[in-house]
Amino acid sequence: MAEIFDPSTHPHRRYNPLNNEHVIVSPHRNKRPWLGQVEPPQSTELPQYDPACYLCPGNTRAGGRKTEAYKHTLIFENDFAAVLPPPMPEAPVAPHHLLTTDPVGGVCDVLIFHPRHDLTISRLSVQDLQRIIEEWISIYVKRGSQEGIKHVQIFENKGAMMGCSNPHPHGQIWSFTAEPTILAREKVNFIDYSKSIHPHSSAPKGPHGKPCVLCEYAHTEVNLESAERVVVKNEQWVAVVPWWAYWPFEILLLPYHRHIPSISHLTSEEKTSFADILSKVTKRYDNLFSCSFPYSMGIHQRPIPLSLPEETDEDDIVHLHLHFSPPLLRSATVKKFMAGIELMAEAQRDITPEQAAAQLRACSEIHYMDAKE
Amino acid sequence: MAEIFDPSTHPHRRYNPLNNEHVIVSPHRNKRPWLGQVEPPQSTELPQYDPACYLCPGNTRAGGRKTEAYKHTLIFENDFAAVLPPPMPEAPVAPHHLLTTDPVGGVCDVLIFHPRHDLTISRLSVQDLQRIIEEWISIYVKRGSQEGIKHVQIFENKGAMMGCSNPHPHGQIWSFTAEPTILAREKVNFIDYSKSIHPHSSAPKGPHGKPCVLCEYAHTEVNLESAERVVVKNEQWVAVVPWWAYWPFEILLLPYHRHIPSISHLTSEEKTSFADILSKVTKRYDNLFSCSFPYSMGIHQRPIPLSLPEETDEDDIVHLHLHFSPPLLRSATVKKFMAGIELMAEAQRDITPEQAAAQLRACSEIHYMDAKE
Ligand SMILES: [Zn+2]
Ligand SMILES: [Zn+2]
Repeated sequence: MAEIFDPSTHPHRRYNPLNNEHVIVSPHRNKRPWLGQVEPPQSTELPQYDPACYLCPGNTRAGGRKTEAYKHTLIFENDFAAVLPPPMPEAPVAPHHLLTTDPVGGVCDVLIFHPRHDLTISRLSVQDLQRIIEEWISIYVKRGSQEGIKHVQIFENKGAMMGCSNPHPHGQIWSFTAEPTILAREKVNFIDYSKSIHPHSSAPKGPHGKPCVLCEYAHTEVNLESAERVVVKNEQWVAVVPWWAYWPFEILLLPYHRHIPSISHLTSEEKTSFADILSKVTKRYDNLFSCSFPYSMGIHQRPIPLSLPEETDEDDIVHLHLHFSPPLLRSATVKKFMAGIELMAEAQRDITPEQAAAQLRACSEIHYMDAKE
Repeated sequence: MAEIFDPSTHPHRRYNPLNNEHVIVSPHRNKRPWLGQVEPPQSTELPQYDPACYLCPGNTRAGGRKTEAYKHTLIFENDFAAVLPPPMPEAPVAPHHLLTTDPVGGVCDVLIFHPRHDLTISRLSVQDLQRIIEEWISIYVKRGSQEGIKHVQIFENKGAMMGCSNPHPHGQIWSFTAEPTILAREKVNFIDYSKSIHPHSSAPKGPHGKPCVLCEYAHTEVNLESAERVVVKNEQWVAVVPWWAYWPFEILLLPYHRHIPSISHLTSEEKTSFADILSKVTKRYDNLFSCSFPYSMGIHQRPIPLSLPEETDEDDIVHLHLHFSPPLLRSATVKKFMAGIELMAEAQRDITPEQAAAQLRACSEIHYMDAKE
């Protein structure tokens, strides 16, 4: 006779409805010895101003241009952009149908979060975070109004372990003339789910009363008695380690009280509570291993053209959400490797999302560096 | 008027027909300065026998079991398997349709390539490689004949940079009771292409004369006058940096002279030339930056059940191929980071596949460590 299944003990697969992929969870493996590479510890002793940092106020960048003496935030075009502004050259005739090329254009912007070289989102004030959110909204609207732009990707890449070359707090905004692979796939899954015949809860619905996969999911997590994957929530936003999380301490951050297609749809109350939860999530991250926690963060929302709150189209079925993908596994110097079976077959994790959420819930919301003082 | 498009200068997207994704190529960015993390150099001074290595002949492993005193290769079950043998516990009733769990079972095997602790595939003799290929075929047939197994994934994860904890030459074989995400996606794309209406070349065809996307692709690359993405080829096999490569020096290694669904379909001549090209590819890799080149390698083939050369079913449309995914970017200590825009939007590369192939073509097929002697 078969045993009774226990998701904290037995290997199993979980389905990710956003990318239509599975992840294998191997909770019984948590006890195996760690013999792999250990990363250099991240420096936490940074000066408030670094004369060699091209993002500190008044300094000169690698391309020879000068970074203004800004007071709060600063936005400028990346000196080494991955895509160039339209018009693009015309596509050539391909020598074979498997060798086609699509010229792609766009703009790459850099957003400096704060003049202080030594701070990160986790140590900025909620007012500072509100300024960053306003910058995100205005660049989203600005680039989203430019001819030919189909997607505006706001993201932050934090930490040397993620390949980020400069600790000065900053993020990037890449705007493209094509809808990127991951966003296009998510959109298809939002649309497919909106037509699904699953029995739905009393969760908020998308446009025209259609079911939204993330509204349904967030509502479910918040209302489960155990709330075992919820890390933190406030009136409008919730941070969960998603059921289908791939990264050990992955977080999905999203509004759960109503369906919201983009950051340009946020009310001022929703922006304030966005800043609040952003602060709480990143403080818990830093406190988990008492380090400046590395991650990639991305804001996912409906594609361009922008939509207005009074109008709606099919793309409004996309629900605003942020992904946090941190590489750390069990300490400040031991990371997860995306390699081997994961590159060749399927994503796999050992620690369960519920165990990760419990560890993050147990962290303080006072930053460890400020608690010491 | 628009400029004339030049793929070695202008940013563009390329389509990957195996996973239905795009990659952005930004060749104009090659000149930007490198300010990111530098990896510790890999040790090349290894002993032929390491008493602390659990894969060296006669030594004891972490779980307490003993590694036999083998002479050529050795295969054993992983002491810390990610999946456990069937029967699996029954799936529980999910509290919500977005919270379903599928128990997954299987077997994780380890294959030691050679008794010498200090060698790698690149430095083994072609006869040694033929023994490894025979082991791969026999484990594929053995696990593929076991009740419930749906896929057998053969792979090698090489180098500390890929999270590999032991330099002793070895690979792994994970067999699953479910078809993994990446393989399932590739199979769908093989099937879709077989029904496509593209005009096809004189390339080999899949079962029932249907077009095979990889036979068509390999035939095209081999027959292009420039052969600009071909790294090396022999009578049966070709190694190309694929048109849609994501990793800087990614290689797709596959038979191009006939359609072959799995390694169990290989003739003895095809096995010999497989060993030959495996040696040539890995020698060029090591010679590129004069280091033990890290990579993940995976053998992709039709799912289980096994098929026999005399019979055929729809899954035989899958064409045998190997992916090599190496992280290095511009030296033995500078790697590519899969982060930021790539985790959040779309894969992106700077150096073009054609430039990468030219660099690998320029490498010697005599290993740098043997050339010194
Ligand atoms: Zn998303
Ligand atoms: Zn493949």
